[in-house]
Amino acid sequence: MLIVMKHDATEEQMGKVLAHLKTRGFQAEKLIGSERTAIGIMGNRGFVDLDEVTRFEGVREILHVSKPYKLVSREWRPDPTIVDMGFGVKIGGDLPRVVIGGPCCVENEEMLIETARELKKVGVHALRGGAFKPRTSPYSFQGLGVPALHMLRKVGDEYQMPIVTELLHIHQLDALNQYADVIQIGARNMQNFEMLVEVGKSKKPVLLKRGMSATVEEFLLAAEYILSNGNSKVILCERGIRTFETSTRNTLDLNSVALMNDLSHLPILVDPSHGTGVARLVARLAKGSLAVGAHGLMIEVHPNPSKAFSDGAQSLDLSQIRQLMSEMKTQFQTPSSK
Amino acid sequence: MLIVMKHDATEEQMGKVLAHLKTRGFQAEKLIGSERTAIGIMGNRGFVDLDEVTRFEGVREILHVSKPYKLVSREWRPDPTIVDMGFGVKIGGDLPRVVIGGPCCVENEEMLIETARELKKVGVHALRGGAFKPRTSPYSFQGLGVPALHMLRKVGDEYQMPIVTELLHIHQLDALNQYADVIQIGARNMQNFEMLVEVGKSKKPVLLKRGMSATVEEFLLAAEYILSNGNSKVILCERGIRTFETSTRNTLDLNSVALMNDLSHLPILVDPSHGTGVARLVARLAKGSLAVGAHGLMIEVHPNPSKAFSDGAQSLDLSQIRQLMSEMKTQFQTPSSK
Amino acid sequence: MLIVMKHDATEEQMGKVLAHLKTRGFQAEKLIGSERTAIGIMGNRGFVDLDEVTRFEGVREILHVSKPYKLVSREWRPDPTIVDMGFGVKIGGDLPRVVIGGPCCVENEEMLIETARELKKVGVHALRGGAFKPRTSPYSFQGLGVPALHMLRKVGDEYQMPIVTELLHIHQLDALNQYADVIQIGARNMQNFEMLVEVGKSKKPVLLKRGMSATVEEFLLAAEYILSNGNSKVILCERGIRTFETSTRNTLDLNSVALMNDLSHLPILVDPSHGTGVARLVARLAKGSLAVGAHGLMIEVHPNPSKAFSDGAQSLDLSQIRQLMSEMKTQFQTPSSK
Amino acid sequence: MLIVMKHDATEEQMGKVLAHLKTRGFQAEKLIGSERTAIGIMGNRGFVDLDEVTRFEGVREILHVSKPYKLVSREWRPDPTIVDMGFGVKIGGDLPRVVIGGPCCVENEEMLIETARELKKVGVHALRGGAFKPRTSPYSFQGLGVPALHMLRKVGDEYQMPIVTELLHIHQLDALNQYADVIQIGARNMQNFEMLVEVGKSKKPVLLKRGMSATVEEFLLAAEYILSNGNSKVILCERGIRTFETSTRNTLDLNSVALMNDLSHLPILVDPSHGTGVARLVARLAKGSLAVGAHGLMIEVHPNPSKAFSDGAQSLDLSQIRQLMSEMKTQFQTPSSK
Repeated sequence: MLIVMKHDATEEQMGKVLAHLKTRGFQAEKLIGSERTAIGIMGNRGFVDLDEVTRFEGVREILHVSKPYKLVSREWRPDPTIVDMGFGVKIGGDLPRVVIGGPCCVENEEMLIETARELKKVGVHALRGGAFKPRTSPYSFQGLGVPALHMLRKVGDEYQMPIVTELLHIHQLDALNQYADVIQIGARNMQNFEMLVEVGKSKKPVLLKRGMSATVEEFLLAAEYILSNGNSKVILCERGIRTFETSTRNTLDLNSVALMNDLSHLPILVDPSHGTGVARLVARLAKGSLAVGAHGLMIEVHPNPSKAFSDGAQSLDLSQIRQLMSEMKTQFQTPSSK
Repeated sequence: MLIVMKHDATEEQMGKVLAHLKTRGFQAEKLIGSERTAIGIMGNRGFVDLDEVTRFEGVREILHVSKPYKLVSREWRPDPTIVDMGFGVKIGGDLPRVVIGGPCCVENEEMLIETARELKKVGVHALRGGAFKPRTSPYSFQGLGVPALHMLRKVGDEYQMPIVTELLHIHQLDALNQYADVIQIGARNMQNFEMLVEVGKSKKPVLLKRGMSATVEEFLLAAEYILSNGNSKVILCERGIRTFETSTRNTLDLNSVALMNDLSHLPILVDPSHGTGVARLVARLAKGSLAVGAHGLMIEVHPNPSKAFSDGAQSLDLSQIRQLMSEMKTQFQTPSSK
Repeated sequence: MLIVMKHDATEEQMGKVLAHLKTRGFQAEKLIGSERTAIGIMGNRGFVDLDEVTRFEGVREILHVSKPYKLVSREWRPDPTIVDMGFGVKIGGDLPRVVIGGPCCVENEEMLIETARELKKVGVHALRGGAFKPRTSPYSFQGLGVPALHMLRKVGDEYQMPIVTELLHIHQLDALNQYADVIQIGARNMQNFEMLVEVGKSKKPVLLKRGMSATVEEFLLAAEYILSNGNSKVILCERGIRTFETSTRNTLDLNSVALMNDLSHLPILVDPSHGTGVARLVARLAKGSLAVGAHGLMIEVHPNPSKAFSDGAQSLDLSQIRQLMSEMKTQFQTPSSK
Repeated sequence: MLIVMKHDATEEQMGKVLAHLKTRGFQAEKLIGSERTAIGIMGNRGFVDLDEVTRFEGVREILHVSKPYKLVSREWRPDPTIVDMGFGVKIGGDLPRVVIGGPCCVENEEMLIETARELKKVGVHALRGGAFKPRTSPYSFQGLGVPALHMLRKVGDEYQMPIVTELLHIHQLDALNQYADVIQIGARNMQNFEMLVEVGKSKKPVLLKRGMSATVEEFLLAAEYILSNGNSKVILCERGIRTFETSTRNTLDLNSVALMNDLSHLPILVDPSHGTGVARLVARLAKGSLAVGAHGLMIEVHPNPSKAFSDGAQSLDLSQIRQLMSEMKTQFQTPSSK
């Protein structure tokens, strides 16, 4: 960490900063430049939170040198993490790419079976479906709850597909540990730290979605929460960020996919359904995501999107996912470039 | 709601949309323009979620006419809501402005007493303090927990100040119902819908902070969740949004304060501490907030910010809050302009 | 256009709006819903600017039905535009993809020749290079000026590559009309309307870069300026937008590439060099851009990036572009998907 | 400047960086931490552009210590700059606040006289009006041009008010030097560097508007361009930035007003008309801006906004500006706080 002093900072001001650092237990060193002096904190291990120093007279700003995460970082753990989702489906490194498909929320058993049967047939690897739904408006459908978990388990077992479903509240964790293969943390819960701690103690793989206004650094820190509690089976999922552009629901940040592949050893999924919010754009962004190096995709599929209870505008129907899977076939085996 | 067709949409395409609307139970009407046709849905009450219609051939886009909220809206309830925070402190309408002060998190009883005594003396109306802290990094201090609630209650009673403290997880709600006067929902939980439902069933006033990437519409919808569950004692709190500008921690959106005063009858607070993230900017933005029409302020105060466990960079010390309260004195009685 | 009235708007208020519309020459119609009334303006051709109506008592908001552009729109002109850049290089529709490469700015003739020779050899189609450079800081290198144009022309002729160079100020237009094959309008000039008008009168193809905070609609409107002045040889270029994410220089918006392919018949380039700002990410985003359906790429290449006068951090060196061209080979012939 | 190496960077990699720095003429020093090494560049004067170093093996990132501006900085020039706008109107420091009012664009002489007469009467200090208008759509009114300058001069002389008008293109500079008292650089030209250089050579005061996606640092750098060319009569103008929030036209960034008052000695205006885009919000944000410490305001006023050629939705009418001026009276004398 570097504490940059104002060019006219006095010796006395500098002395107070140095004394404060000493009481906090840090070893500091003055770096005298031609225009100003900086104070380097040299002996710290990892990230140091010393923002209160900005209050001292004569201090201009603080520059952080160490990133505040470590376990998720490729710098410290160069080998790629491979996450086993169950039923032989593995994701990460140079393994073939993985596609997770299914409806935004489970509406009934029939539609789930119809979807799973077709997805299995066209080569989709895992089945997603929401049991509990977070909705922006209090007047919208909120999900079937636990019965949906039973349906997902039954259908997953029948079609030999791992089940991915979202943990909306901590008290549902036991149920998910019992019924799901992969626990999804939604974008709105990316910084629900108690939840991160709890899934960190679970043995299930965790699919962590990026918050819609989270930086890459905050996203990796959220993953760090999970790893630091003992669970290193984390899959990162880019799903679009919020920007000034409103002609698509979100702005899919494919830069972040390439960047996170450099910064972290964890596998990276892209969700082009939420990333665009528009069904007719999904296929193109799916192919773009694989070309950028994503290890897999998560795509909303519904047998009859115009009757979907939610996300109808962005879901593919069964013929659209069939076509997309066929178009992407050659991309699946390409080792993810770096 | 208005469904805008492409200029070359066929009669058959239009017919399919109309048929779909009929099966969904809506009454529709064709509006024939010189360049294109639109379909108006005329008889609906409130917001209609028909986004799946964008999938139909010949449809260009959907325009929503009704806002998706109603109970929070001044259009439907013109009189201002006055929220009674306890100990005679009321906020809203043309009442004198209210200031809530206190540390980011309760560190121990001594610092809390020292802070409350001084705040009371300089005219601050209510005491805030965190018992449970959400932290971006897993390696930071996470709060004292329930013992901090006991301290807050004791100190609030002694100095006759209502206690405002954050609900981090639903399972803490009983404790907050017992010890707090006002329940704060933090920015990260603004769309934690289960939490909104639960505090909607509480009898306590709720201080709802705007999510850092939430639009004004989403913010008002979150408040609608609480009101629609029976609790209309909601205070809105603007605390800065995330933008491309990083020279301050957030971008305080004072436009939204004036706008929400027009759109909603609920009282509006501003938190210039999080809104700027920089102690030396807080006083100026506090005065600006009142001038824009905020009904009150929430300000972080710490007896020794450079030793604070968190948010030291943005907290005022006791002499700074004393000076600010004195400078704002003339602003307190001004009726909030519209 | 739709003027939405407040639910309690009076007949008199509605009457005043209708009278105003009549004086402005518009034909209006009342649309009576169950909760509120709207006023539709039915007979207009194209976009109507009536924002002053928001000032009338009883008016809640205005919804625009027609988009404010037409000539660039695929709805009105379904066939793709093919732009001939010279030397047989054509871009657009289902033609093979085109790559434009070269240094951020021309530093001297030797480096330009070295670059062009290698680019030609590896299959790059056109040569870019800045003669005039806009720089954020007044203390940075500002470009060689007209002599750089001479070098570009000479080298372009020698290697049979069309020359793409930026018009920084209108008074340089004559020189560019004389020396360049394609005139580039930089992101900062996307809304320099006088410049758009002038290149609209030129006969040269125009490569128009998206402003870093321009919406897709504003971008297409800027292109509309050029087309409406008589020049339809416009190539759109996505080069990243400004968001809260600062770990890359910009956020490359590949959603916009797919979306604009639907909305407009114009060819679309992507500039992954500015879009990421980081050389080691460029190749992956280049491949992703083609997979999303871009008609071509613009990539910064420098024979010795660590000695480049500008943009050294994001330029590929000659061996990197060679490898990328070889990796993308199979993508070139794929018809751009929709 | 600090070059941060990866934790496993080799001696050889470090050596190459040090060698490169030597050839570039910089004096470097190794700072050995417990987890990684950094290289400090100690002897530079001012900002150093060495981004190409990120390309070297073993380098993780670069941290800039010096800000890239100096002349505009309060750190180097602590005394406030006072700008004399003419007719005795001065702005800056602790002088009484200044209000500039007038129409978006000059439509004819009658409306200009009517506006100026009323503005003078209610205490507005200076008159603004556009002669040349940048318009997003090619189909909108583009301004009267030079005749509008004549009208502005005549009316300004008659009512003894300085004239503020926008320079849209460099070739208009002679005319503005002749007819205007203050030259306005619009948001879209904030990084039109040739224009900045030219007004830097003018003797007229310059009102520089912040670009809608410019950071505070970029804004101050744009001002630095003007000062470094010899003109230090620069007034900064905050006019709202582009964010994800679209319920107002822009997000007025009052944080930046307080921050720039600390960072720079230049006077700061706020334009709440563009900052909100909504007439009924303007008065409240105007008062908020003064409370935050702005040295003045620029407000759009039109005698009949619902007939305005442009910006009708955000202009105050004559009775609204009269009321606002009366409400702000007590704020005018307050020394701008810091």
